[in-house]
Amino acid sequence: MTEFAQRTNRQFRLARRPVGMPTRDDWQETSEPVEAPPVGGVLVQTLALSLDPAMRGWMNEGKSYIAPVGIGEVMRAGGIGRVLASSHAGFSVGDLVAGALGVQAYASFGPAEASRAGLARIDRRLGTITQWLNVLGMPGMTAYFGLLDVGQPKPGDTVVVSGAAGAVGQTVGQLAKIKGCRVVGIAGGRAKCDWVVNELGFDACIDYKAGQVRAGLKEHCPRGVDIYFDNVGGDILDEVLARLAMHARIVICGAISQYNNTAPVQGPRNYLSLLVHRARMQGMVVFDYTDRFPQAVAELSGYLRDGRLKSREDVVQGLEQFPEALNRLFTGENFGKLVLQVVQDAPLTA
Amino acid sequence: MTEFAQRTNRQFRLARRPVGMPTRDDWQETSEPVEAPPVGGVLVQTLALSLDPAMRGWMNEGKSYIAPVGIGEVMRAGGIGRVLASSHAGFSVGDLVAGALGVQAYASFGPAEASRAGLARIDRRLGTITQWLNVLGMPGMTAYFGLLDVGQPKPGDTVVVSGAAGAVGQTVGQLAKIKGCRVVGIAGGRAKCDWVVNELGFDACIDYKAGQVRAGLKEHCPRGVDIYFDNVGGDILDEVLARLAMHARIVICGAISQYNNTAPVQGPRNYLSLLVHRARMQGMVVFDYTDRFPQAVAELSGYLRDGRLKSREDVVQGLEQFPEALNRLFTGENFGKLVLQVVQDAPLTA
Repeated sequence: MTEFAQRTNRQFRLARRPVGMPTRDDWQETSEPVEAPPVGGVLVQTLALSLDPAMRGWMNEGKSYIAPVGIGEVMRAGGIGRVLASSHAGFSVGDLVAGALGVQAYASFGPAEASRAGLARIDRRLGTITQWLNVLGMPGMTAYFGLLDVGQPKPGDTVVVSGAAGAVGQTVGQLAKIKGCRVVGIAGGRAKCDWVVNELGFDACIDYKAGQVRAGLKEHCPRGVDIYFDNVGGDILDEVLARLAMHARIVICGAISQYNNTAPVQGPRNYLSLLVHRARMQGMVVFDYTDRFPQAVAELSGYLRDGRLKSREDVVQGLEQFPEALNRLFTGENFGKLVLQVVQDAPLTA
Repeated sequence: MTEFAQRTNRQFRLARRPVGMPTRDDWQETSEPVEAPPVGGVLVQTLALSLDPAMRGWMNEGKSYIAPVGIGEVMRAGGIGRVLASSHAGFSVGDLVAGALGVQAYASFGPAEASRAGLARIDRRLGTITQWLNVLGMPGMTAYFGLLDVGQPKPGDTVVVSGAAGAVGQTVGQLAKIKGCRVVGIAGGRAKCDWVVNELGFDACIDYKAGQVRAGLKEHCPRGVDIYFDNVGGDILDEVLARLAMHARIVICGAISQYNNTAPVQGPRNYLSLLVHRARMQGMVVFDYTDRFPQAVAELSGYLRDGRLKSREDVVQGLEQFPEALNRLFTGENFGKLVLQVVQDAPLTA
């Protein structure tokens, strides 16, 4: 009997591999008593979870950049929590930590597990909890290294980013502006496009739901596209391929339009534009850059502080909302970085 | 009346834009008297022409890396000829020259045209005429800069090249071997595969006509593919994408499987393997490297001389055979670099 045994952990486990869009039946809700952590380990109460398009990929069988979540396992998710108990040298009770907590109310780690989960203390002076899940978290790191390392922007470049109002896209575009580029977003709906232009300072934003992608690219990228940061794949990737500038760089970060396909992935028919324009298309995975996260956090938190970088999070209340909340990413219903608040009164945004 | 007026120039002009595989009706044969060249110009008798897959692309309307051949214009083609008359400072009667001669028996150039056609004297001590159309010509330059500049091979890399017995592929594979790589070719038919392994020294060759691509890649690339030099596109590109090594480089040189498509180009469905493997796919066009051709010619002719580099050309006799000869590229009937011999007794291979 431990001091936590009166608490109950609730979890979402993967019940089966979804076909197409996940449904409630693809998940199994479980609950179990909270136990003290192993010797040298740490027990964390989840405050908020990051919901990301990549999670859909982790639910599939097959080789990818990370092992799939096993059937019956707690669904993998990044999050931020508070340390409730610790005999780990790196963590003290009360610390705020980020890491792969999983879709559950409490996460217990042995020493090796804590390392594998990337558990690390966060500094609240650099940003709010939601910002630590967004600009200072995986989406921000993805934007930073994808744009700067893979895209290699030069002042005056025309940068196009899809999913422009999403977690990664919002930081890609603002960072490209800071680096002196002309930035054109692609997003779904007037409200997102207006926000991206009026609040974030993008030069233009194309509403793909209005079917304006081709015309919009022609209008807003008269000298072609130097960098395309692709979060969506599908038809939009093809439209951008058709408008590349010479020596263009396409950063393949994701392909959210394809993740719930039951048909084969739609390959980019216009890929020979890479040849015509001596362009390159390159994939990136944020986990390759962990050693350099502190550098990115320092730079991005500076921009947050001086107001050059804004962030928007879309917070859904309640662990029990997880299945429906996740699917909002694929219907485009989220507006900003999607966060699942697990503890109701947690001070996420202050 | 000039000294050449008794000679007749014969030409193949583009009569219309082909749909699918070109037919005789897409060409117009014309003849006209040979005239003295303009002041400061040069008159060249075509000895042999290079027939290349890229020519199919030049017959299509639309933006590409080079303007399409106009309807009624002499078909563009690289070739080697002998100077018959010259008031150009760079050329003397009797010189052997390479350049964009066109599909015609005689080519006349003003000074600016000679420059635009890339007309340059060739040094027969460095290679035979057919070698100057192959290893020391555009195919060899494409192989050299595509492999070395874009592919960036390291010793021990596994290099896969499609169209392995073709003009570009044969040099890509041999050059990769010289640079210390393990080389796997993909070619059509047992004879080509045997030649590539037994004569050129590739480590293995996969016969795509036997439907062995997936199994062959699995067998011969157990640690994945570090560099794929793609001349063909289509299903083979997808199969290689499915077997990339981490940080792989795909050189997009061409897509011969798609050039006669009447349907849209088949995009690579497995392109998200670029993300999984942090790989890049990059297009190249040989004309970007003209300033560095002398460096490549020096290196490649050295390998020819010391026997480390072999070349094979497939010579078709007679300008009048042009339409059928060109199509052999698309059926895979050619075995080695396809050359159209225009002057019957020209010493092409000695």
